[in-house]
Amino acid sequence: MSTIQREHLDAQLRGGGVGEEENVDAARANFVNLMSSMPVPEEIGVQEISLGGRPALRVTPDAGARPGTLLYFHGGSHVVGSPRTALGLTGGLVVRTGVSAISLDYRLAPEHPFPADVEDVVAAYRELLEQGNAPESIAFAGDSAGGGLTITGALAARDAGLPLPAAILAFSPGVDATRTGESMQTKAAADPLLTRAGIDRLSTLYVGDQDRRNPLLSPAVTADLTGLPPILVQVGTNELLLDDARRLALRAADADVDVILDITAKVPHVFQSFTHALDEAGEALDRAALFLRQRVRG
Amino acid sequence: MSTIQREHLDAQLRGGGVGEEENVDAARANFVNLMSSMPVPEEIGVQEISLGGRPALRVTPDAGARPGTLLYFHGGSHVVGSPRTALGLTGGLVVRTGVSAISLDYRLAPEHPFPADVEDVVAAYRELLEQGNAPESIAFAGDSAGGGLTITGALAARDAGLPLPAAILAFSPGVDATRTGESMQTKAAADPLLTRAGIDRLSTLYVGDQDRRNPLLSPAVTADLTGLPPILVQVGTNELLLDDARRLALRAADADVDVILDITAKVPHVFQSFTHALDEAGEALDRAALFLRQRVRG
Repeated sequence: MSTIQREHLDAQLRGGGVGEEENVDAARANFVNLMSSMPVPEEIGVQEISLGGRPALRVTPDAGARPGTLLYFHGGSHVVGSPRTALGLTGGLVVRTGVSAISLDYRLAPEHPFPADVEDVVAAYRELLEQGNAPESIAFAGDSAGGGLTITGALAARDAGLPLPAAILAFSPGVDATRTGESMQTKAAADPLLTRAGIDRLSTLYVGDQDRRNPLLSPAVTADLTGLPPILVQVGTNELLLDDARRLALRAADADVDVILDITAKVPHVFQSFTHALDEAGEALDRAALFLRQRVRG
Repeated sequence: MSTIQREHLDAQLRGGGVGEEENVDAARANFVNLMSSMPVPEEIGVQEISLGGRPALRVTPDAGARPGTLLYFHGGSHVVGSPRTALGLTGGLVVRTGVSAISLDYRLAPEHPFPADVEDVVAAYRELLEQGNAPESIAFAGDSAGGGLTITGALAARDAGLPLPAAILAFSPGVDATRTGESMQTKAAADPLLTRAGIDRLSTLYVGDQDRRNPLLSPAVTADLTGLPPILVQVGTNELLLDDARRLALRAADADVDVILDITAKVPHVFQSFTHALDEAGEALDRAALFLRQRVRG
């Protein structure tokens, strides 16, 4: 594998930011373009299905699936992205765990603001359970806004009385719509992908004038995380969202939830996408895969 | 494997605490007794050697060693314990990584107070390097007081101009002699193994009247951790020392050090010893082994 130093990746990424565009269509097109440069494993099969009333992609390992399901939620600030834009990440987990994934095409803002996507997550999970899948065989996984949905979806499922999945995996989750993390300031110069202005522009489309302290918008700040399954949070230090991850993990530990906070220095937001360029990406996915294999029971 | 619920382990352990005894000889004998109940893998060979002028145990996997060396530091509050009392942990890592370990019999207080043990760690590491071992092939690992030595030994090696090892693994490290962590109060009732009085009694033997804010006594509070290699810290939530681990990890991330803070809920101090009783113990060792395999280069 041809790899580059992590210090050099940031320079290459600068200007590839999300949410800087004038309109939503341009933002969506640019995000597709950005993510299309990320490698997708070849050893997977992809099938269009529906789950909980939404389209979804079923991603299976060519090598033959182990029991279980990874229910995946793509990133894109609740406004852009799709299961296709996250296929490198989802496929990377499928290949490394041997467990199939279903990547949910949840509804996006501004057409469908909060809490439409959280409702879609719960509906998809409910259908998985109704199909006879044991909760112990299911993990939630996601990146960025989708990392946030792993937490808020689990909270909403818990509050709806559903049994909880076996594990939660969140890459660089957005879990604080109040934007009160220190890293919103301290990492502003270091983050090559996100800007506060870009985040705010898209976040406003998602939140509107709803209370940003709602636990399903800012679980790292206001949620009671009691009863959640084991959580693995991975994040880089070159991220505006670093403190989202840190506070989520510490809050989970305070609630006696098993939690792993896995911080890689000097890498950007959702660095696990860059398996073609950074050894750190594949290594982080390998650690995530071990965590999932330890938790997901057939 | 016969396992028990993690909630029930604590009740079994209560009264097994360290440092409650009237004298050092009794404390050392009791610790040997406590640790002799912990399982040691059968698939290892053990050889008495010396390193850096101190006795040590070389622990090798029967299956044939992969390249590299785990330099291990046992727990015991800097006053009790030996490579023999930590053999279950050291052997568990050796079997899971396939990498040999050298467990150092560093000098103990009160006969040899701080910084005698830190000096022993640096001398042992220096001899390993002088033997021709590349720093990239060496990891520091340890539990409790020995977990602290993984950090303070690396800091002292760095400040002595030595190249640093490839990785640091710390189980429930003691890294704050100022005892200012919140968990010193909030976990007092939950910790079945340690008490504040016991910790203080032994700590006084080690520190004497030296400044407890010395970075080699309280690295989680006062040390500049810049340049340290990737760190994995594992800790339970039923521990007085929980906040030692948390603050160490956050401080490392602030210094742009790769760090994983791996928190298991409702388990006691150095729960990785209890592989006979807790599934969580072996699972944590498996995660530690993957971390070491990712970092240690032959």
